[in-house]
Amino acid sequence: MNDTISAYDSSLFKNIFTSDRMRKEFTDRAYVTRCVQAEVALATAQATIGVIPSEAAQQIASSCSVDKLDFDRLRTETDIVGYPILPLIRQLDAMCSGESGKYLHWGATTQDIMDLASVLQMQAGLSVIEEQIQSLRSILADLSIKYRDSPMAGRTHLQHALPITFGYKTAVYLSAFDRHYERLQQLKPRALLVQFGGAAGTLASLGSDDAGLKVREQLAKNLALTNPPISWHVVRDGVAEIVSFLSLVGGTLGKIALDVMIMCSNEFSEVQEPFVPHRGASSTMPQKRNPISSEAILAASKLLRSHASLAQDAMVADFERASGPWHLEWVCVPEAFCVASGALSQAIFALGGLCVDTDRMLVNLNSSKGLIVGEAVMMGIAPIVGRNAAHDIVYSACKDCIEDGTSTLYDRLSTRSDVTDRISKEELARLCDPVNYLGAAPQMVDDVLASVPRSKAKKANGVNGANGTNGVNGH
Amino acid sequence: MNDTISAYDSSLFKNIFTSDRMRKEFTDRAYVTRCVQAEVALATAQATIGVIPSEAAQQIASSCSVDKLDFDRLRTETDIVGYPILPLIRQLDAMCSGESGKYLHWGATTQDIMDLASVLQMQAGLSVIEEQIQSLRSILADLSIKYRDSPMAGRTHLQHALPITFGYKTAVYLSAFDRHYERLQQLKPRALLVQFGGAAGTLASLGSDDAGLKVREQLAKNLALTNPPISWHVVRDGVAEIVSFLSLVGGTLGKIALDVMIMCSNEFSEVQEPFVPHRGASSTMPQKRNPISSEAILAASKLLRSHASLAQDAMVADFERASGPWHLEWVCVPEAFCVASGALSQAIFALGGLCVDTDRMLVNLNSSKGLIVGEAVMMGIAPIVGRNAAHDIVYSACKDCIEDGTSTLYDRLSTRSDVTDRISKEELARLCDPVNYLGAAPQMVDDVLASVPRSKAKKANGVNGANGTNGVNGH
Amino acid sequence: MNDTISAYDSSLFKNIFTSDRMRKEFTDRAYVTRCVQAEVALATAQATIGVIPSEAAQQIASSCSVDKLDFDRLRTETDIVGYPILPLIRQLDAMCSGESGKYLHWGATTQDIMDLASVLQMQAGLSVIEEQIQSLRSILADLSIKYRDSPMAGRTHLQHALPITFGYKTAVYLSAFDRHYERLQQLKPRALLVQFGGAAGTLASLGSDDAGLKVREQLAKNLALTNPPISWHVVRDGVAEIVSFLSLVGGTLGKIALDVMIMCSNEFSEVQEPFVPHRGASSTMPQKRNPISSEAILAASKLLRSHASLAQDAMVADFERASGPWHLEWVCVPEAFCVASGALSQAIFALGGLCVDTDRMLVNLNSSKGLIVGEAVMMGIAPIVGRNAAHDIVYSACKDCIEDGTSTLYDRLSTRSDVTDRISKEELARLCDPVNYLGAAPQMVDDVLASVPRSKAKKANGVNGANGTNGVNGH
Amino acid sequence: MNDTISAYDSSLFKNIFTSDRMRKEFTDRAYVTRCVQAEVALATAQATIGVIPSEAAQQIASSCSVDKLDFDRLRTETDIVGYPILPLIRQLDAMCSGESGKYLHWGATTQDIMDLASVLQMQAGLSVIEEQIQSLRSILADLSIKYRDSPMAGRTHLQHALPITFGYKTAVYLSAFDRHYERLQQLKPRALLVQFGGAAGTLASLGSDDAGLKVREQLAKNLALTNPPISWHVVRDGVAEIVSFLSLVGGTLGKIALDVMIMCSNEFSEVQEPFVPHRGASSTMPQKRNPISSEAILAASKLLRSHASLAQDAMVADFERASGPWHLEWVCVPEAFCVASGALSQAIFALGGLCVDTDRMLVNLNSSKGLIVGEAVMMGIAPIVGRNAAHDIVYSACKDCIEDGTSTLYDRLSTRSDVTDRISKEELARLCDPVNYLGAAPQMVDDVLASVPRSKAKKANGVNGANGTNGVNGH
Repeated sequence: MNDTISAYDSSLFKNIFTSDRMRKEFTDRAYVTRCVQAEVALATAQATIGVIPSEAAQQIASSCSVDKLDFDRLRTETDIVGYPILPLIRQLDAMCSGESGKYLHWGATTQDIMDLASVLQMQAGLSVIEEQIQSLRSILADLSIKYRDSPMAGRTHLQHALPITFGYKTAVYLSAFDRHYERLQQLKPRALLVQFGGAAGTLASLGSDDAGLKVREQLAKNLALTNPPISWHVVRDGVAEIVSFLSLVGGTLGKIALDVMIMCSNEFSEVQEPFVPHRGASSTMPQKRNPISSEAILAASKLLRSHASLAQDAMVADFERASGPWHLEWVCVPEAFCVASGALSQAIFALGGLCVDTDRMLVNLNSSKGLIVGEAVMMGIAPIVGRNAAHDIVYSACKDCIEDGTSTLYDRLSTRSDVTDRISKEELARLCDPVNYLGAAPQMVDDVLASVPRSKAKKANGVNGANGTNGVNGH
Repeated sequence: MNDTISAYDSSLFKNIFTSDRMRKEFTDRAYVTRCVQAEVALATAQATIGVIPSEAAQQIASSCSVDKLDFDRLRTETDIVGYPILPLIRQLDAMCSGESGKYLHWGATTQDIMDLASVLQMQAGLSVIEEQIQSLRSILADLSIKYRDSPMAGRTHLQHALPITFGYKTAVYLSAFDRHYERLQQLKPRALLVQFGGAAGTLASLGSDDAGLKVREQLAKNLALTNPPISWHVVRDGVAEIVSFLSLVGGTLGKIALDVMIMCSNEFSEVQEPFVPHRGASSTMPQKRNPISSEAILAASKLLRSHASLAQDAMVADFERASGPWHLEWVCVPEAFCVASGALSQAIFALGGLCVDTDRMLVNLNSSKGLIVGEAVMMGIAPIVGRNAAHDIVYSACKDCIEDGTSTLYDRLSTRSDVTDRISKEELARLCDPVNYLGAAPQMVDDVLASVPRSKAKKANGVNGANGTNGVNGH
Repeated sequence: MNDTISAYDSSLFKNIFTSDRMRKEFTDRAYVTRCVQAEVALATAQATIGVIPSEAAQQIASSCSVDKLDFDRLRTETDIVGYPILPLIRQLDAMCSGESGKYLHWGATTQDIMDLASVLQMQAGLSVIEEQIQSLRSILADLSIKYRDSPMAGRTHLQHALPITFGYKTAVYLSAFDRHYERLQQLKPRALLVQFGGAAGTLASLGSDDAGLKVREQLAKNLALTNPPISWHVVRDGVAEIVSFLSLVGGTLGKIALDVMIMCSNEFSEVQEPFVPHRGASSTMPQKRNPISSEAILAASKLLRSHASLAQDAMVADFERASGPWHLEWVCVPEAFCVASGALSQAIFALGGLCVDTDRMLVNLNSSKGLIVGEAVMMGIAPIVGRNAAHDIVYSACKDCIEDGTSTLYDRLSTRSDVTDRISKEELARLCDPVNYLGAAPQMVDDVLASVPRSKAKKANGVNGANGTNGVNGH
Repeated sequence: MNDTISAYDSSLFKNIFTSDRMRKEFTDRAYVTRCVQAEVALATAQATIGVIPSEAAQQIASSCSVDKLDFDRLRTETDIVGYPILPLIRQLDAMCSGESGKYLHWGATTQDIMDLASVLQMQAGLSVIEEQIQSLRSILADLSIKYRDSPMAGRTHLQHALPITFGYKTAVYLSAFDRHYERLQQLKPRALLVQFGGAAGTLASLGSDDAGLKVREQLAKNLALTNPPISWHVVRDGVAEIVSFLSLVGGTLGKIALDVMIMCSNEFSEVQEPFVPHRGASSTMPQKRNPISSEAILAASKLLRSHASLAQDAMVADFERASGPWHLEWVCVPEAFCVASGALSQAIFALGGLCVDTDRMLVNLNSSKGLIVGEAVMMGIAPIVGRNAAHDIVYSACKDCIEDGTSTLYDRLSTRSDVTDRISKEELARLCDPVNYLGAAPQMVDDVLASVPRSKAKKANGVNGANGTNGVNGH
């Protein structure tokens, strides 16, 4: 029970919102570790270019270690200075023997190191996100294959519209994640930039020749980051793009969660989240199984939207280094990564173990007594009775069905001589059966699956502490 | 160095964004303590009304203690259930001897207890906010009195407009905080509501008579909360109102911070944040003193805006208890309180110890060579030369000043016979002197100070760890 | 078909998002009319105080008229100046005979007039909102009375929880609107402030005595606005409070719309929006009746949240008049009023004519075969068999029901000798009937209705062009 | 003076926020024109594939025209139906002779056509944005070349940090726009998708073979859109990505505007927006020239952030077509395009005609009396006196300078024997001169210019009605 105040860090709530796997990339300790990595990488690159002595760089690399830090002192001094880098260097310097420590942070400014640390965290974070997206795509592909031909009601404005298949639905989800994957590949080289510019970004501390630029290039190479043509201390489009991307992923996840949640309601009962004993238990109602993963994902989609807003606010930075806007990234970057990863974990868990009741889907599909295929029937009899007549006949039959509440569209149509005179009852029954009206849904499933190369991702495990991800369970 | 990921909990950053004083109301432990308090208060109220045995309530009150909780087990079980209350009750039950523990949580639902805990936190949090607002009002009142007559340039669109006084500026700030104080008084009885409704809010578990309603009334009385006429599990306007209020406070603080920050720039140099050795030190630039409190406040104003958005999202709750939207409050309520209090602390520190350079204000005021009083001069000579002529004369003289870049408005006007023929040079000089053009600014300061009753609040201490709040320092 | 680009002004979409009644308060013409009103009121107040000649004020009042304006010229000149007031005064001046027009805008600045115009619009706008809130409260009160005892499933996390009544549900909505009404009464005197301060807010143009302050006081009196102690050009908490209030109203409306929309789904079929021929018709599906008012309201709740965010952004104004932030109010204030009023109209229409299917509510309530009262039964048999045994018996019976999918809780319990030995079948049947388990729901309805004075508001008409608001229709 | 309520459509304000050029792509008329284009293109594609008769398609293509529409009737019927497509088809049908009109909208659903119309608008809108981005890049490239070596103070936390050049500053801006251009190229093929799926997206109305899919493919080809593998009615990541992109562009523009605005203040006076007679004139202060383009851009950056939030909200769509979330796109897509284009226009105008005062930049640079190069001097003397001593000497000299307020860093250092014993006064003077401390700034300018292929874009004209874009004016 620690003294944290954010739900993201609360021992009670953190596993609802975040994933352990991402958390370890964004803890305080991970951040300071990245700062040390940045300082060491800088010294190493500078030695390679000849800006500082090789021995100093070697000494720095071998001596500087997070494990030796006095974190209490670091915290206290950071409170005074306002930024953690000066206090950190002071301790790193003391770890180095002789004068080597004097070459730490050579020509760098606080934001250089903090940006490098943050970019390295984002680089690692995007790898986790990528792996999770791949797992989810794999799960969605499996669901799409398995339920490619399982009919259910398609709903628009929450009303029955036309039949779809459950695999069609999941293939729609999958198509969005295929695009997210492409976005991720494109943004990484653009947004993961090395930062090394010194106080005003001009590398003045390394003189007027190109030594500083060579250091920056070497540093980029060593850290597998892109080397931009100029400092980006105050053009934060890359960071904002990353957080906006996470928010787009959150938006798609939110859509899925909303669908799942409503399908979980008693009246729908088409799917259920995986059963884990006592999960989602009510304090008063033993019979309930709440869609707790979907709830967490829906919340995450809104939290991520908020994070994206803050990252966009942070872009409006003043002059050569910002007064306040930059602080917003300190809040929204770690949170956005952890929440996005948490939501992906919840989705991997909930969809990976989703209980799908295809029988109930069929019951619901038929509950509107054939009305759902009103359009189909209209199109089907149009060539025979004419389009206008078809519309009027079907519209009137539908109205009758709704009003009497018991008869089906087939019942109504099969009593009309203007229909039965021209269409056999067998043909009419076929026309009125929703499952004969799936259109290109199965073909679209195949098209999505074929649209991009798919490797069989190894399954990531889902929600922390739950081991229920045992593939896809049918009813 | 803990394993937190939120900047609000980071040992490096938390003191930039939050205040210790508010944090202790919103830690995990504080939350669970409030949950226990809620369960005990419920049992006590139920005994008073006669719903449960008095001995059970006494046993519950004397046995249930946060100190005895196994927090690891609480966390683990919460992960499974999705909510912390069932796991908590299980442990509280075990603390009670005999059957008393069976009367814990009698007729309540998880959200009853979580809402009560949250309302109790907000009740305490608003007290802290109120105290801080009072401290800040007191500081702003002091500044307004002290600098009531200290002239400086008033700026509109970042251009010199007309002279104001620094005390006028702070009295404008104060007027907004006077309104915030009034808002706070009005919202407390409306938004701090007791919650006790059971699973669907109907108190069905306590039968169909009014026993449940009497318990709710008693509970409200015991906890100093308002007793609403119906359950509010899914009408969250009160929570959203509180967070929106904190965001309004943040907006005013952001305005102040923006002013201070620009006035701190080298080119303005009119104020500086309090000097604390090494505070705001640069890793490379020993001469700098960064406006770090103002930066933190500016960031806070945007963070709070985001929290208010989330609280408004949380209002769109489904049916009798929400699927996801409610989760947003778990995130935004503690964060908003801690960030608002952090920003108030920063403001109390920065304004309480603000270094004001009235000489430089005068230099800046005069730097536009009288142009700032163009309007004054125009109005002053209008009765003599006619309004249209006055406009043309002054407009043309101003244009000349801007173009030659050295002469003052007085210089220019005093060479024009259409002016000097009708106005003495003394009168012209008086008209052109900015300090004679403060209008009702000092009177408005007095009016603000007199507008509401003001007690001398005891000074709250400001930023954590800094002891620099030694009153208001003039230049 | 005009050349507008905003959906709020689109001839196709505007009636979905806004109300005609509010639109007429916020059109361009209405705005300019308010600006003229402000200039006239200023001159009138100044004549009363003796700052300008009475004849000039009378001339201004009788001559200045929106009808005489050349709006094309106004637009062109506004494009150049950046603000509309100077161009407006030029035309108003020309309307006045002699020198009277010279006394227009005496000592005022552009923002004085624009703020006054905006406050007058908001004053009128809040009256419309107040009337609509009263209409909606009246409708909700009627629904609460009519359906006070109509049972339906209460749902938490979209799962059946316990029975409620439909009137209980609407009374919960009503309780939030009662609070909104109180908020509105409290914010009006605080936020509807007169503005008159001149270029930097100091009233310097009217000299150093209190003439300016007296003018401001008189102006406030004439316009029925509050006279603040100091200019508020850059402390915009009042505007932000008003827009935040509209957003809170939107949040509650969004909650209602979400409930209605899901209850409209085929699987729920508990309510329907009022039937208007062809309303919500599908281009392909004749049988559908879409919840189009609820959709519009749900969208409005998010739009209003966005407007509140912008109004909070606008608070961070620089110095004595803002560079950019103020512009945000020009966008968000009219939009927020029109969207809030549009959403209220849609709600008045949809709820005023709501089709409620109490039979279907009962069918749904019973669809879970008594499981919904698992808690009730448990509590009911606890005194007889002991609480732990009760829990185990009911939990096991529920589990069996869910698994076999056909038998009811009564069926299961009535075969167990550990139950039937101690409880009669009649008593057991009573315990298992959801309608006997409404708790204090009906009493809470009465309590809400009695909690505040209620006048019978005259019904406002609802959605533009629709005349379907013929009271509340039962099934 | 129309009856619009949105500032974006206000005759007074629309040119502040939007550009005419983009407006014409997003007016009501443009939207309906795109809907007609979509219906015609659909018929044409269906004839190509053989789904409908060629003569019908030809008849539809030649007869359907926006010019023949009765817009009043369209509006009235849209109000009733809730969506404009059914009413539109009714009128288009009447335009066609014989039975051809019956083949209109064949197998399509309302959202197919509305999405197609919106995508075609976005396609055209992105072309405008692309052209404007190219113009702005060209202007920024010109500024970067011209001012590559013009020194000014680099500022961090609004404090002087180290010298930069003005061209370095604009090259930093340019680097962000180079990335925006790349983003735009990558998102177009991903986000501009054809939509044709029928009621539930399955193309069921065209049967179960692949006829529908072939139509969709042909339609994509005819309209130069991407053909996705499945319907995207409810996966709106493409739309959200586009609006987020516009918001990222807005963020960079906001950063530029904030810089310009503060540099325009009297105390800085380093740049001014282009002079156009009466532009930004004050109603009371003839001497002012307000940064009105920058103000509009700063506001736009926040408006666009809000639009991006709404587009992300819109992603959380339910089932096969959304209930409410989709409405948000109707609001935010046209607004975001028009506001982004308006902000780009303002930036093209303001930066294209920016008045740059390089003399004043130098004055400001030197105003801190050499303190700005404290770091440089420290690094410069470190090799001679040792790093620790260098730090102490410079720190102490800086402190003295700040305290006495008149002497320069050179003054102070040149009196210390621990310095002058080891460094010549000439060398010391060189070290203390800020212009010798530009580092790699000029080289970075060259690197940005060389980093991507640059065509000389033809200059777009800037702000509506202003013709002041006459290149870049030096002082």
